[in-house]
Amino acid sequence: MFLRIDHVGIACHNLEEKIGFYESTFGLVVVSREVNEAQGVREAMLHVADGEGGTSYVQLLEPLSPETAVGKFLAKRGEGVHHIGYGVEDVSKAMAEIAAKGVRLIDERPRHGSMGASIAFLHPKDVGGVLTELVEAPRQ
Amino acid sequence: MFLRIDHVGIACHNLEEKIGFYESTFGLVVVSREVNEAQGVREAMLHVADGEGGTSYVQLLEPLSPETAVGKFLAKRGEGVHHIGYGVEDVSKAMAEIAAKGVRLIDERPRHGSMGASIAFLHPKDVGGVLTELVEAPRQ
Repeated sequence: MFLRIDHVGIACHNLEEKIGFYESTFGLVVVSREVNEAQGVREAMLHVADGEGGTSYVQLLEPLSPETAVGKFLAKRGEGVHHIGYGVEDVSKAMAEIAAKGVRLIDERPRHGSMGASIAFLHPKDVGGVLTELVEAPRQ
Repeated sequence: MFLRIDHVGIACHNLEEKIGFYESTFGLVVVSREVNEAQGVREAMLHVADGEGGTSYVQLLEPLSPETAVGKFLAKRGEGVHHIGYGVEDVSKAMAEIAAKGVRLIDERPRHGSMGASIAFLHPKDVGGVLTELVEAPRQ
């Protein structure tokens, strides 16, 4: 079902500062910056690698306010890994298959993710404490 | 510097149970099981994807005892993402380049990781709260 590790989603207090760190320390390159009001984040995607199953990124996330999900995460746990995104061929099909296994979906239907992707989150309590995202990349 | 997201390291209480979950829910396949006494873990690597820069895995980690690093992590934070491993060409060279940027290394020299890899951990306080591992895969 999983085609790739699409991205590691990392919560931070200061997006520009963290982009600078990942660029200068690890040589990653920003390929997209977006504000996602629905998710309450300002974010950047940094390219890591290409593969048969698509591209892998580091996603840096800064909350738009303390009341957002990422804002609350930062207040409770501090900076760090917020979620893991896996690439899938068809997000709706994957959601149905996973729900049939008894895993609760946070999203009832796919929503808009980074760089035009269709995404859905799974409930971390049903995935061993890992907030898990399904990512269907846009058709080329 | 980074060739791939080598793996997402996930801490869990019961390795066999979690392997079963990742296999049955997401269709991942275990390609290696090891006990790493030095790191105090029983672990499994599950294949996700192959790419130009190498292979990406989910790594499931069960502590050998509560006194290990992963045991303490579980007691403090519960199950979830423990670290992120990135593939590099030459772990010693990457360690030197990263240390030169002011990031503290947990390991002074490379040590043995999963599946014959040479690895080193970077201090999470210097990487925005993310315990970050460098992974040099063994020569084929």
